[in-house]
Amino acid sequence: MTLLLSNSDVEQLATMPECMSTLERSYVDLAAGRALSRTRSDCLSPAPGDHLHYGLMTQDGVIPSLGIAAVRINSDIVSMMTVGDHVRRTKVPSAPDARYVGLLLLFSTENGEPLAILPDGVLQRLRVGATSGLGIKYLARADARSIGLIGSGGQARAQLVAACAVRDITSIRCFSPNRERREAFCREMSDTLCIDVQPVESPELAMRGVDIALCATSSEGVVFRKEWLSPGLHVGSIRKPEIEMDALRQADRVVIHTRDIKPITELSIDLARDPLVANRRVIQSTDLDIRTFPVLADVIAGTAEGRRSATEITCFMNNLGTGFQFAATGALVYRKARELGVGRDLPTDWFTEDICP
Amino acid sequence: MTLLLSNSDVEQLATMPECMSTLERSYVDLAAGRALSRTRSDCLSPAPGDHLHYGLMTQDGVIPSLGIAAVRINSDIVSMMTVGDHVRRTKVPSAPDARYVGLLLLFSTENGEPLAILPDGVLQRLRVGATSGLGIKYLARADARSIGLIGSGGQARAQLVAACAVRDITSIRCFSPNRERREAFCREMSDTLCIDVQPVESPELAMRGVDIALCATSSEGVVFRKEWLSPGLHVGSIRKPEIEMDALRQADRVVIHTRDIKPITELSIDLARDPLVANRRVIQSTDLDIRTFPVLADVIAGTAEGRRSATEITCFMNNLGTGFQFAATGALVYRKARELGVGRDLPTDWFTEDICP
Repeated sequence: MTLLLSNSDVEQLATMPECMSTLERSYVDLAAGRALSRTRSDCLSPAPGDHLHYGLMTQDGVIPSLGIAAVRINSDIVSMMTVGDHVRRTKVPSAPDARYVGLLLLFSTENGEPLAILPDGVLQRLRVGATSGLGIKYLARADARSIGLIGSGGQARAQLVAACAVRDITSIRCFSPNRERREAFCREMSDTLCIDVQPVESPELAMRGVDIALCATSSEGVVFRKEWLSPGLHVGSIRKPEIEMDALRQADRVVIHTRDIKPITELSIDLARDPLVANRRVIQSTDLDIRTFPVLADVIAGTAEGRRSATEITCFMNNLGTGFQFAATGALVYRKARELGVGRDLPTDWFTEDICP
Repeated sequence: MTLLLSNSDVEQLATMPECMSTLERSYVDLAAGRALSRTRSDCLSPAPGDHLHYGLMTQDGVIPSLGIAAVRINSDIVSMMTVGDHVRRTKVPSAPDARYVGLLLLFSTENGEPLAILPDGVLQRLRVGATSGLGIKYLARADARSIGLIGSGGQARAQLVAACAVRDITSIRCFSPNRERREAFCREMSDTLCIDVQPVESPELAMRGVDIALCATSSEGVVFRKEWLSPGLHVGSIRKPEIEMDALRQADRVVIHTRDIKPITELSIDLARDPLVANRRVIQSTDLDIRTFPVLADVIAGTAEGRRSATEITCFMNNLGTGFQFAATGALVYRKARELGVGRDLPTDWFTEDICP
């Protein structure tokens, strides 16, 4: 049988520490060339409506030691809007009942069979958070106690949960532009983490003087500035543009997630003329060549160095997601779902065939 | 609702002439940059058993004018064996009940929703056949009457059906190494096409003196030799290695399917050491640079030339499949299934989510 899971199934099955531990072991496979990841691809074409486009995004990962291959698919209506001096990219829930379309398909590397189909929403944040958390584990000071955070969405939540799983955090300050949303987020996270999460009025107030500075925004522009660097700081980011290039240049040690610097991109001719889409591409192509930095998998495998002293400024740029992350965390979810009998069984022969394709 | 279709649904819904006509119109979009295709990717890692590996193959296509985005996924156990002096690549039906795993997922480019899930087996042959058929339509002599064929599998069948849809064929000769299989194929195709399909004892007997020479094998080696070229011939191939490089050099006009010369390939370190896999890569990397040839989409759109005289030797190399072909033929199948009420409806919310991924 092929297992159909929901986001709430995933939520009850996968904890952040388990995701981090599965990913940590699997990154060693990746560093050794035993696990595979195919660079994300984005096919972008126009959609009905102003400043909207359709995006088909796919990424694949294979981890033979876990017996799992994963394909993650997003089929999105995307809005590109200018907010202040930033370009903001937002997915619009346009599928029936105002829903999003993000799927993870899991297959067995032993016999090829389709093992599971699940939405990617919960796992998406878990895998980003878990990877950033591993960045903190290997790069932040062991005695880091305070966090500054910019962002108040689902990714911001996962960043805090992951950070608190690997460091003994006692204080958190958070900024995001919308006061109401920011305060609600701080109340919720204070309850979740049993740590005082304090809303502040500016990014600088959040970031100055902390041990760990985390960016978790959907911005296509800079959110962390070099003026906020101080000895011993660890800076984490979930999108390449978030950290000012000069801050990266001044950091003592920068580690990136993957040498997949940008997605494989196919743009339809109509969309190639859209100034916001063009703008997005310019932002991505004019900056520092980050491929010279080591990747997290090598730090975990011990072939690249982590933090060397208490005063070093370290930076982890969770620069692009990989199908590999979905294979690792998906394998965990699938195994636990089978152990605990969670999910709905669908006939496997719906998704297999007797014709050789 | 999301539509679940079977191979027999697809078989009853899509005819070769309809597939050719949908593809023909869509290739004009592709040539103009309005439709998109993301190069196929193969992630290959070891599988339990000698000479077996696991392959995760994905490809994407988007055709906004048809409102369809497609992701095709194959999750295969593959055997690489040496047969005579050829390396033969065979998919092993290893999923439960000895089945193959090939899926096509269709999404709406208008609202992102998952429209349909179907096996790829029938469509796989239809799209290859339809594309080769368009190659014949634009490149073979208008008065071509005879076909020579090497191969007797599902792809060989589709090649004949497509050829007979665009030319008034009166005689067909067929060779494949296994006599029993070849004779059964010829009996079946004689019935299907109402044309005498004659089994012959050698590739040369099949190919010499015909108007259209078609290769439809699973060989990783040469099957069509330059000695068999004659004025006015059209040669068709469904795999790059099938046609001897010197035959391509001697042809007056060669058209390829796509400038995607090879798949994006990720090989696990264990597999990179396998001599058969390495061999396959060598075969693909040492030959003629076929990217200098025009692509079929440009010939159909009228920006590259087709056949110019009755004596030219033309060649169409259906060199690599594309997600675009699955988007076009998938759109046709989906539209007809909805019109005729074919298939099983699954709740769309199984495959959508209320969390922004």
